[in-house]
Amino acid sequence: MRELGLSVTVDRIGNIFGVRPGKREGPPVMSGSHIDTVGTGGLYDGNLGVLAALEVAAVLNDANLQTEHPFCEGVRFQPDMMGSTCFQGGLPLETALAIEGIDGKTVGDELTRIGYAGDQEVGFPVKAFMELHIEQGPVLEEEGIRIGCVTGVQGISWQELTITGVSNHAGTTPMRLRKDAGYAAMAIATGVRQIAKDMGGNQVSTVGSLTLHPNLISVVANKAVMTIDLRNTDEALLQEAEQRTQDLIQRVTEAEGVSYSTRSLARFKPANFEPAMIDMVEAVATEMGFSNRRMPSGAGHDAGLICLNAPTSMVFTPSVRGISHNIEEYTHPEDIEAGANVLLQCLLRLLTSP
Amino acid sequence: MRELGLSVTVDRIGNIFGVRPGKREGPPVMSGSHIDTVGTGGLYDGNLGVLAALEVAAVLNDANLQTEHPFCEGVRFQPDMMGSTCFQGGLPLETALAIEGIDGKTVGDELTRIGYAGDQEVGFPVKAFMELHIEQGPVLEEEGIRIGCVTGVQGISWQELTITGVSNHAGTTPMRLRKDAGYAAMAIATGVRQIAKDMGGNQVSTVGSLTLHPNLISVVANKAVMTIDLRNTDEALLQEAEQRTQDLIQRVTEAEGVSYSTRSLARFKPANFEPAMIDMVEAVATEMGFSNRRMPSGAGHDAGLICLNAPTSMVFTPSVRGISHNIEEYTHPEDIEAGANVLLQCLLRLLTSP
Repeated sequence: MRELGLSVTVDRIGNIFGVRPGKREGPPVMSGSHIDTVGTGGLYDGNLGVLAALEVAAVLNDANLQTEHPFCEGVRFQPDMMGSTCFQGGLPLETALAIEGIDGKTVGDELTRIGYAGDQEVGFPVKAFMELHIEQGPVLEEEGIRIGCVTGVQGISWQELTITGVSNHAGTTPMRLRKDAGYAAMAIATGVRQIAKDMGGNQVSTVGSLTLHPNLISVVANKAVMTIDLRNTDEALLQEAEQRTQDLIQRVTEAEGVSYSTRSLARFKPANFEPAMIDMVEAVATEMGFSNRRMPSGAGHDAGLICLNAPTSMVFTPSVRGISHNIEEYTHPEDIEAGANVLLQCLLRLLTSP
Repeated sequence: MRELGLSVTVDRIGNIFGVRPGKREGPPVMSGSHIDTVGTGGLYDGNLGVLAALEVAAVLNDANLQTEHPFCEGVRFQPDMMGSTCFQGGLPLETALAIEGIDGKTVGDELTRIGYAGDQEVGFPVKAFMELHIEQGPVLEEEGIRIGCVTGVQGISWQELTITGVSNHAGTTPMRLRKDAGYAAMAIATGVRQIAKDMGGNQVSTVGSLTLHPNLISVVANKAVMTIDLRNTDEALLQEAEQRTQDLIQRVTEAEGVSYSTRSLARFKPANFEPAMIDMVEAVATEMGFSNRRMPSGAGHDAGLICLNAPTSMVFTPSVRGISHNIEEYTHPEDIEAGANVLLQCLLRLLTSP
């Protein structure tokens, strides 16, 4: 950012901004993404949108173009979209800074340690926001389409479910007398899949994490901790999936005679982008001759939070075999070029509009 | 053992024997059990049978009784019934010594390290074998019965199943395109429970261990490693359970488009004790006024291996709430006393018979 002559600031939750001034003062057009990814992730998730926005700034510099509005590039800091959530006003700063990580350290202490506890207050008006991102799913590649014009972000419901049963000997405990926390967890997990199948449409449901205790071959598990990830583009349907899951948990745990507790890990409503912004992405992609389609995002994105306060859309590029959150994540260079050019043209329109 | 004046030997697989001579030379009457238990186990599993046999030797000493036959007490060393298996001739010594533990160290090296690589050859003729053990199940307590006259040991089939799918983003991958190793594992686990329910009788089935990779909330698992524990008192039914489980694995993995491999961790046929030995336990318990019932053992025991070469039975005492392989494992002192007295009287009959 400094090499590109941007004026760099860091806010108190660690969001990093680089501003390229326009003719006017006032809310900037903003683009960016996140530089972290999941523990097993690849190279593209997040970073693509950061590098593409930097490339747009470089192109503006090379063309010596003074835009109408300032251009601002932001990246977020962990955990999941916390920077964007604070920026958008969805989480008080002091609450976020006090959050403990799995290692017991707080966000605030860690930001100070790495030198990213900035002094800028969190949040400012944004004229418009654009984010380039890999699709992280298989749809564009399957249909042979180059550009996704993103209509919004799926709502996300994450919960952790802890089931407590009775640990016992696997050989001597008749089936009818078992209170098997592991069985209950696995029956719920398969039921969660069935709910997604029954609901159809955009409903997706995943149990990606399950830990049994004591996790021994010959011992009925007395404790199971699992996560349930539910997503839908429609808030009413997402609530239906949550309710069905709750009923399932109730039914299975009662039948097995085990107890349970749940804890919400995240809950984001579906976000719908502004129609004019989606139209613009579609028009630019079509004018540039790139095959394109409208589609919702299945993954959560910073744009899904920023859009609550500013006109927003996203540009998706295909993910090879739909693989993401995986070291094999890959997007072809020609697809990246196409996506970055759509981003550039969209930003130019926004930056030079009256 | 030394305090009781027994002559102590250790064999090359670490089995420890204390011999109290009788009037005659020749095969001894033997009693004992194991001193290890599972990682989360309690105080009684195994140790009770070792301490009870020591107590019998102490009683014989206190009574200054010279028995007809020598009395020998043995305990086994880890892993699962390896000492008894070698003693019985079911596993070559050199194979056992070369087995690597989960820490990569071999049985032989560890035996040498702790000073229990004895110089006695493994295995010798035994006139009869008796083992006192906690039931490790809820049946005796439920029925208010003090002594279990054990008729045999359930057959055990242990396998490890590894399922390989494709790791992917939980939000963007449509349900129909998933190759979810975790889902396949959990569907198999619930199916394994259903097989036990459908078969009824003495069939028990447990998935006590399941590990997902990468085990993250928002990532479809690409790998699942699970154990399947099947037990039955009837070999044909145990084979039926194995076949049904195999069919289930085939069906579920095909439907999900994931691959799998299996590995046998243990396989013991059901063992039936000699009728005369079971009759003796029943007669002794009844003569002493203890309520008793015949029952198979759901757990594996050293007696289940020794019985292949020598007349064998076991005495069970109740386990409170059927809990075993758990730190809460408990047996009331009066039940232990009753069980140890039945053991004593059975051993006296065997030791003093012509």
